[in-house]
Amino acid sequence: MDPGAFRAHAHALADWIANYLQDPTPYPVLPRISPGDIRAALPAEAPEDAEPFDRVFADFERVLVPGLTHWNHPGFLGYFAITASPPGVLAEFLAAALNQQAMLWRTSPAATELEEVTLAWLRRLVGLPDVFDGVIYDTASISTLHALAAARQVAVPGVRTQGLTGRDLPRLRVYCSDQAHSSIDKAAIMLGLGIEGVRRVPSDDGFRLRPDALSAAVAADRRNGEQPMAVVATIGTTSSTSVDPVKQIAAVCKAEGLWLHVDAAYAGSAAIVPALRPPFTGWELADSIVINPHKWLFTPFDLSAFYCRRPDVLRAALALVPAYLETPEDDAVRNLMDTGIQLGRRFRALKLWAVLRCYGAARLRDAIAGHISLAREFASWVDADPFFERLAEVPFSVVCFRANPKDGRPGPELDALNERLMHAVNATGEVFLSHTRLRGALALRLAVGHLHTERRHVARAWALLRDAAARLGSV
Amino acid sequence: MDPGAFRAHAHALADWIANYLQDPTPYPVLPRISPGDIRAALPAEAPEDAEPFDRVFADFERVLVPGLTHWNHPGFLGYFAITASPPGVLAEFLAAALNQQAMLWRTSPAATELEEVTLAWLRRLVGLPDVFDGVIYDTASISTLHALAAARQVAVPGVRTQGLTGRDLPRLRVYCSDQAHSSIDKAAIMLGLGIEGVRRVPSDDGFRLRPDALSAAVAADRRNGEQPMAVVATIGTTSSTSVDPVKQIAAVCKAEGLWLHVDAAYAGSAAIVPALRPPFTGWELADSIVINPHKWLFTPFDLSAFYCRRPDVLRAALALVPAYLETPEDDAVRNLMDTGIQLGRRFRALKLWAVLRCYGAARLRDAIAGHISLAREFASWVDADPFFERLAEVPFSVVCFRANPKDGRPGPELDALNERLMHAVNATGEVFLSHTRLRGALALRLAVGHLHTERRHVARAWALLRDAAARLGSV
Repeated sequence: MDPGAFRAHAHALADWIANYLQDPTPYPVLPRISPGDIRAALPAEAPEDAEPFDRVFADFERVLVPGLTHWNHPGFLGYFAITASPPGVLAEFLAAALNQQAMLWRTSPAATELEEVTLAWLRRLVGLPDVFDGVIYDTASISTLHALAAARQVAVPGVRTQGLTGRDLPRLRVYCSDQAHSSIDKAAIMLGLGIEGVRRVPSDDGFRLRPDALSAAVAADRRNGEQPMAVVATIGTTSSTSVDPVKQIAAVCKAEGLWLHVDAAYAGSAAIVPALRPPFTGWELADSIVINPHKWLFTPFDLSAFYCRRPDVLRAALALVPAYLETPEDDAVRNLMDTGIQLGRRFRALKLWAVLRCYGAARLRDAIAGHISLAREFASWVDADPFFERLAEVPFSVVCFRANPKDGRPGPELDALNERLMHAVNATGEVFLSHTRLRGALALRLAVGHLHTERRHVARAWALLRDAAARLGSV
Repeated sequence: MDPGAFRAHAHALADWIANYLQDPTPYPVLPRISPGDIRAALPAEAPEDAEPFDRVFADFERVLVPGLTHWNHPGFLGYFAITASPPGVLAEFLAAALNQQAMLWRTSPAATELEEVTLAWLRRLVGLPDVFDGVIYDTASISTLHALAAARQVAVPGVRTQGLTGRDLPRLRVYCSDQAHSSIDKAAIMLGLGIEGVRRVPSDDGFRLRPDALSAAVAADRRNGEQPMAVVATIGTTSSTSVDPVKQIAAVCKAEGLWLHVDAAYAGSAAIVPALRPPFTGWELADSIVINPHKWLFTPFDLSAFYCRRPDVLRAALALVPAYLETPEDDAVRNLMDTGIQLGRRFRALKLWAVLRCYGAARLRDAIAGHISLAREFASWVDADPFFERLAEVPFSVVCFRANPKDGRPGPELDALNERLMHAVNATGEVFLSHTRLRGALALRLAVGHLHTERRHVARAWALLRDAAARLGSV
């Protein structure tokens, strides 16, 4: 592709993307295609000869766009809604062209130091003390993997060199609530703890980890000769956004000598609003914390911020410098490869820097507070409607609820009704809601998180839910 | 940022990036700054109020650009040179705006199925059989982590559930040559094998893993009651791009029942050129293979292609479906979260698709063959100059060499001379070379890999080397 062609196509894309970001609502949030449709519409082999970008873009519009789930649609209210905000998209465009590979300071001083600066900005915005050192990873799964790798490094002397096998080691245990994220199980698999190494402590009525049950589990494991290693407390669980009592959990961790990792991947961004800090009480006592700006801080996916009180442990666990990566300035700089499983790393800080500056702290606080208000207003509608019921508190911007005609129908039928309801609403293409299970019951989830989601989108979701419920309720 | 502002800024960036991609040579390849310069030039706190993007971009140019290492400069000849090709950059711009999170088919059918299609294209281009199933990860480090996790799943019954501790398990062993990549050690740390779990088998004079030494190491470990688990063979080692004899290694793996992972992260792209296939003989017998299109297939960082003959094992090791991620189509589709430690995944396939189409297989073959020719031509200049010597074969596009006045100076002084030589050449800003150590000696590496690197850039590197050597040789 010659430079002139790139320029022309980049301008054309600038317009297409500007239109898309301005209004993706002509597209259904959830695509209306079947498995295999896209694969079937594409050739089985790469072309032998170059094709003009126009033809590629035509296929993009014809084949791929109908197969996109529009995460950037203001009616996207499923999972955790995310936003590719305009400043973030501009920064990613630049980052792609610069193609920085920030494994060493030398291979991108700008990416290395901007990562440090933007993570310090974010740390102060969320009110964490300066003792936390930050690293950017791609996803919360990888952040949590590193947190538990660091915990293991503390718990098992020599694990870095000798590993876990061929030695007489007790079983290692990580604790979290029965509501905690599946990434903890995946990290436990990778780290050789196994899924059974994760003790899922019962949560209370509000889906919060019970500190008494945690203490009891730790004590029981110690009696069995097992080795407690870490606790993962969650502020904003994926299912219901419940908040574990971090301060009490931190006290248990201190007494028991356990690494405390706080999973605030979703809710951590809310800590930029001082009035929303109470649920975060005690997280400053953690050994490590993960916050995903790509979730609720309007930063394009992927960017996970990992804060660690003991970066020396992370480096002791993982740093390895092959001869071909030694540089004269090694003692004077931070080399990002030293704190990660991944040697290569993109210039992710650029987009967070652009977002924080182009919105400013005040506007970001307003956006998050506004999302929480919308969720609470939706919750009030649910509460006021006899055909619906709420299934969890709303500490942040997610509402768990269901239709319940209260006509004595058994649980499985109620679940089936709600599943039909969800699919009916999603089939409109105007909004997209997802589900979860709470104490075995199917719950619908409405998650506000896209920067451009307004009251009218949430109200529309409610109207569609009521309409569909009226149609389906007696089925 | 309102839609009009986004549009204006996107057009401005389109021009800036078009100019940058067309000619980044006004910038020095390696920046001329000191550790801390960038940090010191930026404020310690995020702004309270929104700033216009113009101001952010002005700071980008003023503060960050002087701190960039220009990986996209045709004089970048260090490490493995990479390319943010124009079609790839356009695709990344789109991907940022679409903000797909392809954890489930449902959350992005387009990203899910395009990943399958483009990896099938690439598989056929490199001549691998269709039995290999592909998955895109971010980096080769993560691909290799998954390969060894799959190997461990086969080797240790129950590892997924029970882990490695509190059980009477023998030490697990992974084998690779003394030239293999540090990502194998990092994966071994993560997986609980420890660095000592990686047996670094001696390489031969050509830096190739010795199959006889491999067999001997496996036998010795078995005699010691240890458990061999996997072998990592490398086609194109990071240091010298040497090629392990994969076919013979595969025979050992078959006889011993070991998982064979082939690290072709750098060199794998060369297999698209049929004439360059001989070094790949036997890789079709592997259980898993990693090829990084972000290294030598002109695709912006990051995109690592992982091919696995036994995707069922990968799923058995890692698949976990929490209730909130169940979908009605689960049985009919591939959900990418099932084959990875990361739940979230970007729409990385889009850039590979754009690159493969906009260049076409023929042009890509020419580019890679051209790089190899340039490297061999450079090697011939080294060979012909009495002041220089080559330190390794040139199977691909990297030349390892050094200045050696052959005046009887001891090894450390020779190393120091070559280090000064490298820094002198790099200080010109016209080219950037990196180094390695081969059999203890410091070697300079010239790596051709950027799409726009031409004969004149390589010739200029040679002229700078000779000039600097003439100046430094008698020091």
